[in-house]
Amino acid sequence: MEGEIIPKLIAFFEKFPGIGPRQARRFVYFLAEESPVDIENFALLIGRFKNEVSRCKNCFRVFSAQGGEGRSDLCGVCANPSRDKSKALIVEKDIDVENIERSGVYGGIYYVLGGLLSPLRPENQERLRLRELFNKIERSGEISEIVLALSATTEGDMTARCVERILEPFTKKGKIKISRLGRGLSTGTELEYSDRDTLRSAFENRK
Amino acid sequence: MEGEIIPKLIAFFEKFPGIGPRQARRFVYFLAEESPVDIENFALLIGRFKNEVSRCKNCFRVFSAQGGEGRSDLCGVCANPSRDKSKALIVEKDIDVENIERSGVYGGIYYVLGGLLSPLRPENQERLRLRELFNKIERSGEISEIVLALSATTEGDMTARCVERILEPFTKKGKIKISRLGRGLSTGTELEYSDRDTLRSAFENRK
Amino acid sequence: MEGEIIPKLIAFFEKFPGIGPRQARRFVYFLAEESPVDIENFALLIGRFKNEVSRCKNCFRVFSAQGGEGRSDLCGVCANPSRDKSKALIVEKDIDVENIERSGVYGGIYYVLGGLLSPLRPENQERLRLRELFNKIERSGEISEIVLALSATTEGDMTARCVERILEPFTKKGKIKISRLGRGLSTGTELEYSDRDTLRSAFENRK
Amino acid sequence: MEGEIIPKLIAFFEKFPGIGPRQARRFVYFLAEESPVDIENFALLIGRFKNEVSRCKNCFRVFSAQGGEGRSDLCGVCANPSRDKSKALIVEKDIDVENIERSGVYGGIYYVLGGLLSPLRPENQERLRLRELFNKIERSGEISEIVLALSATTEGDMTARCVERILEPFTKKGKIKISRLGRGLSTGTELEYSDRDTLRSAFENRK
Repeated sequence: MEGEIIPKLIAFFEKFPGIGPRQARRFVYFLAEESPVDIENFALLIGRFKNEVSRCKNCFRVFSAQGGEGRSDLCGVCANPSRDKSKALIVEKDIDVENIERSGVYGGIYYVLGGLLSPLRPENQERLRLRELFNKIERSGEISEIVLALSATTEGDMTARCVERILEPFTKKGKIKISRLGRGLSTGTELEYSDRDTLRSAFENRK
Repeated sequence: MEGEIIPKLIAFFEKFPGIGPRQARRFVYFLAEESPVDIENFALLIGRFKNEVSRCKNCFRVFSAQGGEGRSDLCGVCANPSRDKSKALIVEKDIDVENIERSGVYGGIYYVLGGLLSPLRPENQERLRLRELFNKIERSGEISEIVLALSATTEGDMTARCVERILEPFTKKGKIKISRLGRGLSTGTELEYSDRDTLRSAFENRK
Repeated sequence: MEGEIIPKLIAFFEKFPGIGPRQARRFVYFLAEESPVDIENFALLIGRFKNEVSRCKNCFRVFSAQGGEGRSDLCGVCANPSRDKSKALIVEKDIDVENIERSGVYGGIYYVLGGLLSPLRPENQERLRLRELFNKIERSGEISEIVLALSATTEGDMTARCVERILEPFTKKGKIKISRLGRGLSTGTELEYSDRDTLRSAFENRK
Repeated sequence: MEGEIIPKLIAFFEKFPGIGPRQARRFVYFLAEESPVDIENFALLIGRFKNEVSRCKNCFRVFSAQGGEGRSDLCGVCANPSRDKSKALIVEKDIDVENIERSGVYGGIYYVLGGLLSPLRPENQERLRLRELFNKIERSGEISEIVLALSATTEGDMTARCVERILEPFTKKGKIKISRLGRGLSTGTELEYSDRDTLRSAFENRK
């Protein structure tokens, strides 16, 4: 007789980003091929997850403190004394931090906003850590520069404008400087398909 | 200090079908957004998996017996008295069974081969349950027809030929009849792009 | 001072199937790279086109009679005595004829309908040579079988039903037999993605 | 009897950029549907092409002088007194000029190089108007700035370096200044997928 566990597991996998019903089923059939030892290890990792993985109090990145003994509130970047604490790079999500760290072009601190504003989904605004950002800048004596590193999309621009407005009290007083990442030709772009804004910035930033 | 659990979880997710490093990371960040209750439920489901999910002894489909009390060796299809036990439809994988069941065109039993032969990956042959299939036909008094329902690809055709050869002892004696699913225009196919084999079969099967 | 010829040529190229403004411009720039001799040859070919290319009176295929001396009304297929004149294969367009001829699976005559019915574009019906088809069957003493070789799409099915209805007077009297190309798995199809109709036909046509 | 014109026309259409055998056939069948008047107009346009379309002596853009009476050697941009003759924007092809003109971000003169260098196709180098560029800068008293507006691809970068080397005699003497369009996030780019070079430039060009 068929039990309930397969539908329940499929339903949970369907919540994963980018995973629909078909992929979710494939995941369950994949697990059925794994050895009992591997499945048990997987269950143990998931079991440890909530205790060992948390968000940095400073920049809200996801990180895991060492093996459960005590809990550090700061991720590896924020706790690293050689990082430039005067700069905060605001990104949409954790994967953006990874990409920038891998590029090696930035040595300051991050701030993970948690999402982007969207004209189609106004409810997104609640997920963004805007209030926390305001409070953080207000209390901080160290941060003198904010760099907005959001995607060059409608949502990204909309979010950038919103952050600039929210932090206006500080920029007006000259407490912090805010900038956005520069526009121009990105690697692989063909000139033939570049739009006006890209071309304008590329022309202005010529060197 | 950064612990080990994030890399370990990413590594496990990378084993999932169709999931690369980037998607695996997204899964971990997704889990970080889930509530502790949801994460715990997920861990419990994975924990129950090996005890409650198994492969049918008859057709090797993945199924789950009822809530762990006793264990049935037969899946819902094989245990259903109104299925036509004289027919066995040989498929590559569990998802194929689902697709055919959903179509409602077949009322017999299945047999999940577990993979396809591949000229590029000869090691695949070990995953196919060919010996078990031979033994099953040898011992069975009920099965009189085998239908090969494999993909119309090079690997599918190669596998079909292999199964036909393996079961030749039985077809020669007239114990079973083997057929392959018919070729022709599949839904959505434009005539302009149909190849010779498809056109030939479509012409022969005209009605 | 800029003249008019470039915009006019771009406008004509934009009428070509599948060609938008950007591709049309690329064509003009391509012509600017060609030698004057090549351009002149191209102009000559276009100039000869209407005199030397016409539609077969029998099957409406596009063909070209020999170099302008006299004009044959029949294409190479219809004029070939070894073709089986008792069979007429109805297709949507000329490219379908080419594809079937290249496959070598058919030895009868063709009939190019000129388009397909479309629920979204009812005006298409005028382009179809339905009346001519009716008259042709009425007058013909040779044709005993009609095979509908239309795409396995909504439009193709809609058109097939329409042709069957139009030719009902003849099928009822037993003058002709009508059939449609068989459905089933087309080359390259994976079973996992096959829909119900395809699976049903594939199962019925198993061999 | 089948004549030759269809294969010849298909062969010519196959030379068009992005057009393969299948598309070329579709073009011929499309022409067969056009009215004799339209076909004749098309032939006339092609016939006029070589006389009325030429390349600007100054920037090598394709343009057409007015209706055949007299022939101007300069395109509309080069002949326009209000264009800034001190700037020359070097592009790969005519379509790039169109894109930049449409964006309205540039008011100087252009120079169409005619192609890009390619590591895989060294023979491309002959198509580039590099010698003409050198001579042009040598003779010109007006040009003080060269902007390289080539695609941000391997071929584009390779070509940009080549042009910079060729024009070194002039930059060393301070006769001209050379710059490349700035890199950064192009419109629509998501930060998650941006590579190191793009991120580096975007960070350096922040404002």
